[in-house]
Amino acid sequence: MDDLILLGHGSGGRLTTDLVRNLFLQNFSNALLKPLSDSARLTLDSPDIAFTTDSYVITPQFFPGGNIGSLAVHGTVNDIAMSGARPLYLSAAYIIEEGFKMSRLEEIVRAMAQAAAAAGVKIVTGDTKVVPRGQADGLYINTSGIGVHRQKPGYGPERIRQNDAIIVNGNIGDHGAAVLSSRAAGFTKAEIFSDSAALNHLVAKLQDNNIIIHALRDATRGGVGGILAELAEQAGTSFKIYESRLPVQSKVRGMCEIYGFEPLFLANEGKMVLFCPAAEAEKVIEIMHCDPLGQNATIIGEVIEEPEAPEYRVIMETAIGGSRIIDQPAGELVPRIC
Amino acid sequence: MDDLILLGHGSGGRLTTDLVRNLFLQNFSNALLKPLSDSARLTLDSPDIAFTTDSYVITPQFFPGGNIGSLAVHGTVNDIAMSGARPLYLSAAYIIEEGFKMSRLEEIVRAMAQAAAAAGVKIVTGDTKVVPRGQADGLYINTSGIGVHRQKPGYGPERIRQNDAIIVNGNIGDHGAAVLSSRAAGFTKAEIFSDSAALNHLVAKLQDNNIIIHALRDATRGGVGGILAELAEQAGTSFKIYESRLPVQSKVRGMCEIYGFEPLFLANEGKMVLFCPAAEAEKVIEIMHCDPLGQNATIIGEVIEEPEAPEYRVIMETAIGGSRIIDQPAGELVPRIC
Repeated sequence: MDDLILLGHGSGGRLTTDLVRNLFLQNFSNALLKPLSDSARLTLDSPDIAFTTDSYVITPQFFPGGNIGSLAVHGTVNDIAMSGARPLYLSAAYIIEEGFKMSRLEEIVRAMAQAAAAAGVKIVTGDTKVVPRGQADGLYINTSGIGVHRQKPGYGPERIRQNDAIIVNGNIGDHGAAVLSSRAAGFTKAEIFSDSAALNHLVAKLQDNNIIIHALRDATRGGVGGILAELAEQAGTSFKIYESRLPVQSKVRGMCEIYGFEPLFLANEGKMVLFCPAAEAEKVIEIMHCDPLGQNATIIGEVIEEPEAPEYRVIMETAIGGSRIIDQPAGELVPRIC
Repeated sequence: MDDLILLGHGSGGRLTTDLVRNLFLQNFSNALLKPLSDSARLTLDSPDIAFTTDSYVITPQFFPGGNIGSLAVHGTVNDIAMSGARPLYLSAAYIIEEGFKMSRLEEIVRAMAQAAAAAGVKIVTGDTKVVPRGQADGLYINTSGIGVHRQKPGYGPERIRQNDAIIVNGNIGDHGAAVLSSRAAGFTKAEIFSDSAALNHLVAKLQDNNIIIHALRDATRGGVGGILAELAEQAGTSFKIYESRLPVQSKVRGMCEIYGFEPLFLANEGKMVLFCPAAEAEKVIEIMHCDPLGQNATIIGEVIEEPEAPEYRVIMETAIGGSRIIDQPAGELVPRIC
């Protein structure tokens, strides 16, 4: 019995206290979490902060290259890093299905602790709810995060300028393909690994090198294509990208051919789209190539003026020389990938 | 069809954008949320902050005196207020079951907006996920919150001292009884109203009057009894409370007699337990009595020295003159009340 999560673990009573002490406090071990009060007390080195939240409902909870726990840390760290802020503190809130295996939860919590340590963030507050069997599909996790801004103006679509270079830090579509392959082929046979990773250290390297960044966005749900379409709309401008330049690993390309998917719209969890003045682009690529998370960084396009078009849009020059409008997808190619 | 939530509303694509713009942005209307970027940029007036998170999985989602939306605001505002900090900003993350009625979601979101406005907090960042039919029991909401500390030392069990007065700000058990009655009798017949409310303004009044507060805790899951048992353990001391002094409205008392429950362990969502020096107690009661949320505020007991007891504990003098140990409940009297 004590290998399964019970309703009582979410009651706020004795079982909750035991779970919090023996599992969460043990793994997330830090002085700020330790008082286990209703809120964590933090002293920041700046009152200029970034605040974000994300719930993770991915299925399956374990996939090649990570699990829902590491993903919940990476995703929220990245949301903060994309604004130019330095991620510092996370919350972790669990909604667990009654009967979920304690050993699985432990594995997830350990992955969160490791991901947090690697990203240099602390998990300082949390919550646990347990819902009856049949609900919550095992486990959902919400992480919210706080970061501190390093510089006055943040990044944003409103800063995107004509001729800006558009850069991605590596192969696209890996996360979506990994989740898909683990659903289709069973877990052990999957050979495509998620790119799930915290991008904050790579962003910090660019900042330390005084790179002028206009906009930065992680290409999660909707993939690089979805993010570009959204940014073009928000920026009120047009982008041109080149299909032949898109970095895609061959396994992902192969899977996409089988399923009729496009890597451009597959989710990533360790990829960002960066806009910078054209003059900065080579330096960005150089810095990224020196980092394990930027090995295949590529300039995939640029911001263009399109006087004939009445609206902002994303145009892709296809591999065979035609051109195609890239629009925001209405739904997801692969649902529940985060 | 457009009256129901679809999987695509959680895809991060066009449907998500529409939902966020037309529902969330419309209702939570504020300049900080408006950029709809991955994280909100906030400038605080102090770097000394409180950070908290809570997921809400209450069933039913609508109950006399509120719904899951207002509750999600009140609960997180209170978690911050209990540390002595001033709540300022909330996140709102939704996990919605496919097929959930859009009109119900709207009602919930409106209730959140109203509760936030009344509490003086802004909802500045969010997330929407949609899970397949049969999961999430309709809707779960996570709210995380940030507050700013008003004074150097916060409140906490370690500050509790011998002879401290123990005060509650009014009738106990209303929320648990309201949820229970709405489950048992159908929604329209329920006559017991939840006490769900934001306590931050009441706490601010006490602070403005320079009341010395040693500890403050909202008595949610586990009720006043559960919170006292937990605080005694954390403080390493003993408390004595008097059953005859516990403020309980007669409808709740009646329901408890029918079900064999104790109001002391029923959840509250607008009640706090306050520890202060005995000399401050009358002033606290006076201030509370002048506030709509403190009408029935009562001194229910005090911190005692118990040299014979090897451990901290909570002793209740019963109405008939006996005495009883109040321990932390192992589970919940009524599950899923928040």
